[in-house]
Amino acid sequence: MQRIASCSVPTPSLKVPAVLLLVLLSTAALRVHAAAGQSPETVAAQLRDAAMAGHDIAYSWVSELTTRFGPRPAGSQSEQQAAAWAAERLKALGFENVHIESFPITAWVRGSESAQLVAPSTQPLVIAALGESPATQPGGLEGDVVIFPTLTDLKAAAPGSLNGKIAMVAQRMVRAQDGAGYGAAVPGRTDGPHEAAQRGAIAYLLRSVGTDSHRQAHTGTTRYVDGRVPVPAFALSPPDADQIERIAALGQTVRVHLFSGASYVPDARSQNVIAEVRGRERPQEVVLLGAHLDSWDQGTGAIDNGTGTAIITAAAKLIRDLPHRPRRTVRVVLFGSEEIAQPTAPGHTFGGHSYAVNHQSELANHVLAGESDLGTDRVYLFALPSVVAQSEFAKTLLRVLTPIGVLASDRPPEDVGADVTPTVEAGVPAFALSQDGMTYFDIHHTPDDTLDKVDRAQLDQNVAAWAAFVWLAAESDVDFRPRPAPASAGVPPAKP
Amino acid sequence: MQRIASCSVPTPSLKVPAVLLLVLLSTAALRVHAAAGQSPETVAAQLRDAAMAGHDIAYSWVSELTTRFGPRPAGSQSEQQAAAWAAERLKALGFENVHIESFPITAWVRGSESAQLVAPSTQPLVIAALGESPATQPGGLEGDVVIFPTLTDLKAAAPGSLNGKIAMVAQRMVRAQDGAGYGAAVPGRTDGPHEAAQRGAIAYLLRSVGTDSHRQAHTGTTRYVDGRVPVPAFALSPPDADQIERIAALGQTVRVHLFSGASYVPDARSQNVIAEVRGRERPQEVVLLGAHLDSWDQGTGAIDNGTGTAIITAAAKLIRDLPHRPRRTVRVVLFGSEEIAQPTAPGHTFGGHSYAVNHQSELANHVLAGESDLGTDRVYLFALPSVVAQSEFAKTLLRVLTPIGVLASDRPPEDVGADVTPTVEAGVPAFALSQDGMTYFDIHHTPDDTLDKVDRAQLDQNVAAWAAFVWLAAESDVDFRPRPAPASAGVPPAKP
Repeated sequence: MQRIASCSVPTPSLKVPAVLLLVLLSTAALRVHAAAGQSPETVAAQLRDAAMAGHDIAYSWVSELTTRFGPRPAGSQSEQQAAAWAAERLKALGFENVHIESFPITAWVRGSESAQLVAPSTQPLVIAALGESPATQPGGLEGDVVIFPTLTDLKAAAPGSLNGKIAMVAQRMVRAQDGAGYGAAVPGRTDGPHEAAQRGAIAYLLRSVGTDSHRQAHTGTTRYVDGRVPVPAFALSPPDADQIERIAALGQTVRVHLFSGASYVPDARSQNVIAEVRGRERPQEVVLLGAHLDSWDQGTGAIDNGTGTAIITAAAKLIRDLPHRPRRTVRVVLFGSEEIAQPTAPGHTFGGHSYAVNHQSELANHVLAGESDLGTDRVYLFALPSVVAQSEFAKTLLRVLTPIGVLASDRPPEDVGADVTPTVEAGVPAFALSQDGMTYFDIHHTPDDTLDKVDRAQLDQNVAAWAAFVWLAAESDVDFRPRPAPASAGVPPAKP
Repeated sequence: MQRIASCSVPTPSLKVPAVLLLVLLSTAALRVHAAAGQSPETVAAQLRDAAMAGHDIAYSWVSELTTRFGPRPAGSQSEQQAAAWAAERLKALGFENVHIESFPITAWVRGSESAQLVAPSTQPLVIAALGESPATQPGGLEGDVVIFPTLTDLKAAAPGSLNGKIAMVAQRMVRAQDGAGYGAAVPGRTDGPHEAAQRGAIAYLLRSVGTDSHRQAHTGTTRYVDGRVPVPAFALSPPDADQIERIAALGQTVRVHLFSGASYVPDARSQNVIAEVRGRERPQEVVLLGAHLDSWDQGTGAIDNGTGTAIITAAAKLIRDLPHRPRRTVRVVLFGSEEIAQPTAPGHTFGGHSYAVNHQSELANHVLAGESDLGTDRVYLFALPSVVAQSEFAKTLLRVLTPIGVLASDRPPEDVGADVTPTVEAGVPAFALSQDGMTYFDIHHTPDDTLDKVDRAQLDQNVAAWAAFVWLAAESDVDFRPRPAPASAGVPPAKP
């Protein structure tokens, strides 16, 4: 009752008491009736089953977030408003120590932009400027296109060989369940503009880093070199890249006109939103759950990463509503500025870095950190630090997650996500609840990243896996850190 | 050999001898070796099987057409260039009487265009001006949105009730195999702007007439009333229509800014391209095969209707390469300006109308007319004029087409397509080879209508159905016209 009453406190700037009431009522109905003395595994299974039975917390979260604020580019007013909304909502859901930590960034703003084939025929092209990429001159630029099958081929081109030309890398991203195709293709986006400029190119075109064949370009950030992205750089939609390749295959020179009115806001700010379920016995020990609140500007950031913020919030809320708190603290961090996860100017930063700096003194007590940032498809694999791979903790976890289709990985987490990477690099052990990434890169960073792409059953399965996992980790006293080397360390084991 | 030699004649403006050679060589390899004295059914089966075995004619056609010319809006230079290319290609393929018939139209040209939510939050919207719809003022227009679930609801609004508002019809198109959902939704596009303007609206928004959920708006033509489209009118992408409805459902007023720089070219011209396989016995009797060469401007018109032109051309080419011609003439017409199939100004016209007027004196000898204009999915149904529904012709056709998955319809063709409608309305019997339309309206009239959406196996099946059907009709002496009423006509039959 008290929670319901507290949600009736007027929130005039948001005007959503009715919707909020609905969320809280459905949460109350879902409350896991764990009896005192039940084993952690029994409670984990109850959390899992409650989430799988379907609920409104996660879907309402991502629906409201994307509907009210639309795109939330790093440093924008909408990112800031979404953070304020999220903090209010987290308080209303009963989280503790809810606060916002702000930090400076250089924001990048897409302007109007356009591209056309101008020879051998006039045809419009669907492009998107890559994040951080500079504007063209006001009248645009024009050049013949030189096509390279891969970034490696571009790197093999001689200095000066692209003078006055537009370099294009046509590499196709490979569809892979674990998202490995992304890692293989992304250097074309991050490093391509610099490599092209080094050889004299006046602009850079990239076949979108994506697995679909729709007329939408996948944006994404480029890498600063010496404090700047050297030339205007654009992603082409996959069908437009096909078209350019086909025309070139007819033996014709492809000439393109490009325009971008992108700009920078050097004194912008972004922010992390932090909320906790304080631990009942070891509150200083933190299990960190991360996801990012910012999004690219073309879509409304539903699967990247509205669903991630929804999944971790809903999982923590289910744990918060248990009759007794876990022993350790569960901390939810909704990071800002993940999409530009690189220093954008001297002294500036991004959410993951800002968190690790602000909370440096606490990191020794962070027992585990993980991130949800691969859309909304089901979790199919968990990965733990090596030290607990064969432990009772891992066996319990496997028993709880197997019924919802989750395997145990045979190796520790590798890419843990940009938000928690600085924390993990500071020594905090990482876990992963890996999502099926087969279709994620059909949508990722395109205008198509909208709420209709969210599958509620998949979302529920994610919440189930996160709630069960995080509960078990926070209720345990397991030490996930590497053990100190034994005295015999350095002496090779005797060969059998 | 002679055909191959003829293709080597320099065509400097097109520069495609190598590709053309490839097309002709693969055609030659495919030539159906029908022996003299074989039954028409046997030859039809051979044509069917040759097409199903896979060939390059149709795919090369749609690939080159869409690659070389991109979008081909009615009255544009690219439509004209595509028509010139098609005529040259038809000659090179060995067709007879190849010529172009030009006619005047008022062309409509999309300008730059944009839309944003301006309240309760600022969010970009993905829209496309509807064809023929006028520009806004240079600074655009702004108004509160009034949402109507259907056009019927808009029509029920009182005069003056939309003064200064933007009317929006949010009706969702139903997915249906025979495309019936399109007919049900299209009045929202054709009649909506006028109905909105009549009630005082300053602009009109329509949830795209389409079955997908991508961030692309489906354009399409609106209807002139009293010689004009009264207000700027736009299609919204389905996710954008969802977003507006969700915001309104939160109880908030949705305010939108719209801009369109569309314009008209009153003295443009379009053209039909005509080619024949002259009949060996009754050359004056014509089996008419239609498809349209123009396209909307957002995509490259691959499935609407590059594939249609490819299918009928490839089918006629297979027939042309038989050892002996059919008895009747097979006439291929690649129509212009189908997408604006309405008189756009006094004295102006569209391709289907122009053909019926120009060939009025021949129409009495047109034995049958049909059109391919529903993309590239497989033919699943044929429909014949009632008079031959139970004939040997129909039985033979069913035997030939059943093996490739085609049913016989239990009713005559209904909507025969805009290209041949004026010809059919002048009394020419219609046939239909109906394609599966389940996914066609995911792509139709969007930027996504590009070559990558063409399935080669489906394309082959279409060519097989058309080649077999057209051969049987052209080789027969069947009269497809309604019989004169018998003497007893007018006397009701005795009740049983």
